[in-house]
Amino acid sequence: MTLLFTDDDVAAQLDGPTAIGAIRAALLAAHDGRLVAPPRASAALRGGRLVTTAGQLIDQWYGFRSYDTFGHPETEQMVVLHDARSGRIRAIAVGEEIGSRRTGALGGVAVDVLARPDAATLGVIGAGGQAWTQVWAAAVVRPLREVTVYCRTPARRAAFAARVRAELGVPARAVDSAEAAVRGRDVVVLATNSPTPVVSAADLDPGTHVNLVGFKQHGRSEFGPDLLDRADVMVTDSMTQAVSYQPPMLAARAPYLDHLRDLGAVLAGAVPGRTDSRQVTLFCSVGLAGTEVFLLDTMARAAVARG
Amino acid sequence: MTLLFTDDDVAAQLDGPTAIGAIRAALLAAHDGRLVAPPRASAALRGGRLVTTAGQLIDQWYGFRSYDTFGHPETEQMVVLHDARSGRIRAIAVGEEIGSRRTGALGGVAVDVLARPDAATLGVIGAGGQAWTQVWAAAVVRPLREVTVYCRTPARRAAFAARVRAELGVPARAVDSAEAAVRGRDVVVLATNSPTPVVSAADLDPGTHVNLVGFKQHGRSEFGPDLLDRADVMVTDSMTQAVSYQPPMLAARAPYLDHLRDLGAVLAGAVPGRTDSRQVTLFCSVGLAGTEVFLLDTMARAAVARG
Repeated sequence: MTLLFTDDDVAAQLDGPTAIGAIRAALLAAHDGRLVAPPRASAALRGGRLVTTAGQLIDQWYGFRSYDTFGHPETEQMVVLHDARSGRIRAIAVGEEIGSRRTGALGGVAVDVLARPDAATLGVIGAGGQAWTQVWAAAVVRPLREVTVYCRTPARRAAFAARVRAELGVPARAVDSAEAAVRGRDVVVLATNSPTPVVSAADLDPGTHVNLVGFKQHGRSEFGPDLLDRADVMVTDSMTQAVSYQPPMLAARAPYLDHLRDLGAVLAGAVPGRTDSRQVTLFCSVGLAGTEVFLLDTMARAAVARG
Repeated sequence: MTLLFTDDDVAAQLDGPTAIGAIRAALLAAHDGRLVAPPRASAALRGGRLVTTAGQLIDQWYGFRSYDTFGHPETEQMVVLHDARSGRIRAIAVGEEIGSRRTGALGGVAVDVLARPDAATLGVIGAGGQAWTQVWAAAVVRPLREVTVYCRTPARRAAFAARVRAELGVPARAVDSAEAAVRGRDVVVLATNSPTPVVSAADLDPGTHVNLVGFKQHGRSEFGPDLLDRADVMVTDSMTQAVSYQPPMLAARAPYLDHLRDLGAVLAGAVPGRTDSRQVTLFCSVGLAGTEVFLLDTMARAAVARG
């Protein structure tokens, strides 16, 4: 029998520590070759494309996420989990929640691995769903003392701060500039849909860790090369995907590509991450393929265990 | 709310006349450009591929079918239907039934369009799921007087004949050679997994219509070039897909390709089909992309209408 999860189910059943634990396992599996994550496949329709990203955990499962590029505000994604032995579909998730929590949890693992151990303040630019799950996940890995948020619409940033206080129990305030949001912060999150830089590297304190969640391509990026020049450590969750963007990802071009490291490799201890409390570290989030299926497998196993 | 259909739901709710009506509409929509059906997309995993075929009915819906090539006997496919305006997922089908009935219904439309109006006998080689839905659909478009069936395993062909009698109410008998199954028949179906020819063109009577459902490629085909040489009319349900097989489809190479016609075009009256009761007609079934989503849309609308 195929399990079907809606967004409400995911919200109720996939908590932060569980999501982060599963994503940590996924990154390690990708690093040691057990998680197969081929390039995305797409089909051209009129007005948009239908895209699938497939993943396979050897001998355990295979599956995919599908989404489209029509730009409908209410569009729903699909995540599908097949059993590796029988081919049967064990579970399906419909909606946005599993994808959002996946991206948030990747950011949470990056914060855990790269931010200073004593990091306690977080500044976020952007107040949408992606911004939210980044803060949601960061709060799991560091005991946050304060969140500052900026976006262009005052009502939206105020609502975001209120939500952080209410749902995460973390002091939070909306501020009226991007600079005010990030200055003096231990962790910074950029999660906008801006095609042009929203912060300057000069706004960041030494020792800051930054998660980059929005556009990060040549000619379309929420940050500029100054941020990459400032970074001591640059990490991404999928080198394969990082180098396959069109147009190319800023951090996947010379002179930065030689310095870009794999988050799974850092997590496994195969390559170094932060080595100094004054380093600036960057995480370029690309969304490692197969990670949504990893989360769905986690939810499906928990549902079966509950009976 | 997303509707979820299992194989049992499809078996109970998608009857032959409904499926054939929907597939007829799909072929006409493809012919006049309203059904967009791009080439299939696939992702390479270890040991197999995950394949998606997308489809879009302009201004109505878009969606896809997914399947894999691991060869698991119990593997399940997925069909997904999005609303064109909101992007929301209206319905999902899990399993094999919608795909089988889709292929059957394509064969049924081909029989309706190309077989002689007085066709009443059918011979089938193969006794699997594909063979079954071909007979199931043919019985909708012609009042069958007798079905003969051959496959290599006596018990399986006997069971198939018994199922035709029980479920379709059509006299049926198992025979002990391919030739005996097809000789003197008005309609012939080849639905085997044989990579080599299972019948000779000389076994067919003048006026026969043939549905080709199994392998039909150069070097791997359940029929030989003699059958194509014998044919007066050759039709396929997707010219785009027919020419994209690797290795190439026999009927999509010289000298046959120039004679291959589109079933939708014949159905629309844009190109001729059978013009003589002694002609041999062939249908090369390739599985027009988007047709499974067409069936799912039909089922979803019926479910909503039932309330």
